Amino acid sequence: MSSSPILAEQILNALREAVGPPPVALHAPTFNGNEWAYVKECLDSTFVSSVGSYVSQFEHDLMRFTKADHAVAVVNGTSALHIALILADVKAGDEVLMPALTFVATANAIVYCNAIPHFVESDERTLNVDVGKLREYLIRETRQHANQCVNRQTGRVIRAIVPVHTFGHPVDVEELLSIAQDFNIKLIEDAAEAIGSYYKGKHAGTFGLLGTLSFNGNKTITTGGGGAILTNDPSLASRARHLTTTAKLSHAWVYRHDEVGYNYRMPNINAAIGCAQLEQLPGKLVAKRQLFDIYNAAFRKVSGVQLVAEPPHSISNYWLQTLLLQPEMRDQRDQVLEATNKAGYGTRPIWTLMSELPMFLSSPKMDLSVANSLSQRIINIPSSPSLVIREP
Amino acid sequence: MSSSPILAEQILNALREAVGPPPVALHAPTFNGNEWAYVKECLDSTFVSSVGSYVSQFEHDLMRFTKADHAVAVVNGTSALHIALILADVKAGDEVLMPALTFVATANAIVYCNAIPHFVESDERTLNVDVGKLREYLIRETRQHANQCVNRQTGRVIRAIVPVHTFGHPVDVEELLSIAQDFNIKLIEDAAEAIGSYYKGKHAGTFGLLGTLSFNGNKTITTGGGGAILTNDPSLASRARHLTTTAKLSHAWVYRHDEVGYNYRMPNINAAIGCAQLEQLPGKLVAKRQLFDIYNAAFRKVSGVQLVAEPPHSISNYWLQTLLLQPEMRDQRDQVLEATNKAGYGTRPIWTLMSELPMFLSSPKMDLSVANSLSQRIINIPSSPSLVIREP
Repeated sequence: MSSSPILAEQILNALREAVGPPPVALHAPTFNGNEWAYVKECLDSTFVSSVGSYVSQFEHDLMRFTKADHAVAVVNGTSALHIALILADVKAGDEVLMPALTFVATANAIVYCNAIPHFVESDERTLNVDVGKLREYLIRETRQHANQCVNRQTGRVIRAIVPVHTFGHPVDVEELLSIAQDFNIKLIEDAAEAIGSYYKGKHAGTFGLLGTLSFNGNKTITTGGGGAILTNDPSLASRARHLTTTAKLSHAWVYRHDEVGYNYRMPNINAAIGCAQLEQLPGKLVAKRQLFDIYNAAFRKVSGVQLVAEPPHSISNYWLQTLLLQPEMRDQRDQVLEATNKAGYGTRPIWTLMSELPMFLSSPKMDLSVANSLSQRIINIPSSPSLVIREP
Repeated sequence: MSSSPILAEQILNALREAVGPPPVALHAPTFNGNEWAYVKECLDSTFVSSVGSYVSQFEHDLMRFTKADHAVAVVNGTSALHIALILADVKAGDEVLMPALTFVATANAIVYCNAIPHFVESDERTLNVDVGKLREYLIRETRQHANQCVNRQTGRVIRAIVPVHTFGHPVDVEELLSIAQDFNIKLIEDAAEAIGSYYKGKHAGTFGLLGTLSFNGNKTITTGGGGAILTNDPSLASRARHLTTTAKLSHAWVYRHDEVGYNYRMPNINAAIGCAQLEQLPGKLVAKRQLFDIYNAAFRKVSGVQLVAEPPHSISNYWLQTLLLQPEMRDQRDQVLEATNKAGYGTRPIWTLMSELPMFLSSPKMDLSVANSLSQRIINIPSSPSLVIREP
């Protein structure tokens, strides 16, 4: 046996030590609460479709948990982003700033508005938007015209910025609010991965004009498919409800719609699951923090990788636990992914940079050196809360 | 007591005779089969989200029932239409023919493609597209250019036609196929309301290049929210799966997407309900035909209204039972709606003409005299299959 085994072997050993023998999924949901009871009640009521009592309850519970004044439950995180962009007045031909290093849904939602994603550099420490470089870039590359932020290169208006709280780690949203104000850009927080994450004690997704959540099956809590729009503005909340229910005007029987709308409301049956999942969220969050501590102990011995910890002033939900390889180790990433997945540990790399996908090759972008380096060095490792707590 | 009571009173009496005392909903779902068993199994499996075994089972069951070669389950009927239009190559600036007298989802889906709805006249007998007038209109108003159908007035390409099988009554889809071929227009059938409906023995939605279904809570069977795309073309089916799952390229862990995609796949938990609902569909269809017979007997005595029967060569699923007022009775429609809803019978008028909604005022359209007249004379009456069969 070599005294310095290759990285893949070291990581496999650390995983075994931390979470036990395989198979271990990357992130598996658990349904150990009132899911069955609520779903059965929902079926028995026959109100399984859009806008039912569980939808209202779920929205109410989300408001209580996040302290947002309003929550609108929708079919998924992508639809939440799409509606949030419309509500932020993003129009055809506008540009919208977003991290290059994130899931494709954010960029797609921008395209649904016939707008153009404009890719922002990452911060090595937080994996999020580099707020310092962003400010310098906007000073250099934009001008103000009629209270709008105009891209000097393209002449297009930069209407909004959609930062993502990557893997649940809060972005420096205070500085982003300041940038948004200084440059006349609207702030929408993509908090798809960040339920239960806080920046300076305030829930992710509640700082900007609007925030969005996702309850996809791989998230901390799930509704099968689902998402939500958060806002503190009652008129935006009202318009979100209108747009997500085909823009139908309220009437006992008349079918009249006053604008192009969407069929985006969360079905009641999915909301029933969501109500039960939210009850279990605090326990899951505790477990996910404990899992970080367990991994931290196990990976301390592995040189060349670092376990990503929550940023300053933040509480992360640690949605996906993350290993960051040192730059000189990047060539071993695929070997690690091969070895761990083959051994039965669910691991994955971070997303391909949005700026490298064929449909976004011509999108404007900052220098993305750090994002590019990160995109080659990140490995997510098994992150289910059930790895720590054997739930009842 | 008058010997000729006003229409509202006569209709109320007929409703009481046919379906018993109120409250009676317009259309209520029932869950008397394996819904609970399948949903529980789905929760226990923890695979509640997109692409699971119930999704595949549901698609398989839909294929068996409709005899379509391929079925792709999605979040709702609107998303099915959106993807079908993309698959039919509908591009920004194209026009798409559709009935003026239908639900707004069809027109919205066309706008999602940055295309323009072009409204078609209705047939008084079937409530569907008037195929005879449509052919004459296309001869007069279009020209062929490079194997494309060009609107002489606007100069835009008419790329597709999306007929709707209104209330489950099949449109004359053979003549539409012939028109589609003669004018180089692609045929997408909006069969949202027509599961279990047949034209000359073939299921609605399986004639065109693509067909779409809806499983919203008000439909004959429901998945909470849901829809499906039907096609006999394997490459279109494959592309539908790709586009509805964020256009992600298949790989064990790499996240790479090759075009702008959508988050439209049906969650497994909703598909579990769908599998159980499909098992009960034959019984529901029998009950809905029986309900037509019961209404037919009850409304024979009411002068000035006619119960809409299935068109020639067709078997209708009778999704919504429909009264058509004689033209001279149209002024009494709102009185009937008021009286019946107040008495506890769920009734509603047909939709507002699409051409009268503010966002479609400038859309091209045929003469819509019949559609306009129909829009003022139709009342849907309670149509739940459970009104006939007391299911176990």
